[in-house]
Amino acid sequence: MRWNKISDAVIRRLPLYLRVLDDLADESETESISSQELGVRAGVGPALVRKDLAWFGEFGKQGVGYEVGFLRDELRKILNLDSNLPVGLVGVGSLGVALTRYQLKRFAADESFNLELAALFDSDVAKIGGSIEGIPVYGLEDIPSQVQEKGLKIVIITVPAQDAQDVASRFIQAGIQGILNFAPVKLQAPDTVHVVNTDVSLELQRLAYYVPKTTKG
Amino acid sequence: MRWNKISDAVIRRLPLYLRVLDDLADESETESISSQELGVRAGVGPALVRKDLAWFGEFGKQGVGYEVGFLRDELRKILNLDSNLPVGLVGVGSLGVALTRYQLKRFAADESFNLELAALFDSDVAKIGGSIEGIPVYGLEDIPSQVQEKGLKIVIITVPAQDAQDVASRFIQAGIQGILNFAPVKLQAPDTVHVVNTDVSLELQRLAYYVPKTTKG
Repeated sequence: MRWNKISDAVIRRLPLYLRVLDDLADESETESISSQELGVRAGVGPALVRKDLAWFGEFGKQGVGYEVGFLRDELRKILNLDSNLPVGLVGVGSLGVALTRYQLKRFAADESFNLELAALFDSDVAKIGGSIEGIPVYGLEDIPSQVQEKGLKIVIITVPAQDAQDVASRFIQAGIQGILNFAPVKLQAPDTVHVVNTDVSLELQRLAYYVPKTTKG
Repeated sequence: MRWNKISDAVIRRLPLYLRVLDDLADESETESISSQELGVRAGVGPALVRKDLAWFGEFGKQGVGYEVGFLRDELRKILNLDSNLPVGLVGVGSLGVALTRYQLKRFAADESFNLELAALFDSDVAKIGGSIEGIPVYGLEDIPSQVQEKGLKIVIITVPAQDAQDVASRFIQAGIQGILNFAPVKLQAPDTVHVVNTDVSLELQRLAYYVPKTTKG
């Protein structure tokens, strides 16, 4: 399986390239782009752009660069964004609601997105049966049936830390394959499930490292 | 400067180690931890734990491991978390408000955090002069004076994409040194300013790569 050999660092950069190509397709009639320009726009060195894309095929032409429309289509296929991918979100608190609203705006604005927020989940009976921005809120006991029915592949977890592993396990058991985890805990998951952690606190702590110390009065 | 030679991948893992040590200090009377256990709890291989920490000094003892309290203090110092670090946030929309609430909970729960959300900023006159969870909301014209007065070193950007560069430039000019950017754009910043991008859409697109294709009816 060639797929598994490509490092996650490469995969991380593909959506950056796709965004540049989406913008180009919207902005102008540009038909081709050099690895140099693609790199500058994506914030990646041109040699790395060429190396990253070479993992997936021969997309560029010597002296011409990459065809915008073609490379965009290919990247969508590689990232599984060429067809609709339903996503769930569990934990309809303030962060969950904000992400729901924010994501819906992005989904609407971005042609290449193709991720659809299809179902929300919460343990609060006051929220279950309601909806946020038109998306229904289900109870945790509905996880297996909804994952099946809506064909959910990915779940966004925005529950408190102490509940995260429980809800993650429920979704994993129901057959989910990707988790975007906002809870500040390390989730246990089998190798077949890909977990991406997004922890604002960790990012801030990392940023603090780069802030030089000053003596303040 | 040895500092600059340490890769960001190393810096990314330090907050993970710190979290494990914080939990241990809370949980029990454990006085020492092996690189093996620290690695398991942080989700990092033990050899990498030892290698990462060795960049900063000789913290471990052969056959004993790391002293929990000592290593925790050292990591706090390395990450500039041993004294209070004031943080600003610009863009008091639903994501900004959710992060404000969420972060405040983390700050209160986490002894090692030492990051203080000290000021909020927005361009909406209806919001300026008000407050969220007791934190005052200032206008964009107040950026220079507030960065100075509150000693802000880091700013969280949660404004729409089209406004992100403008607000980033204002904060950079005012002397900010770290940016946590939630807007889906690549910000232009001098090398002296460290930018961390947190883009939920990009993370979801990356996750989509790992979801095997299935044929659906």
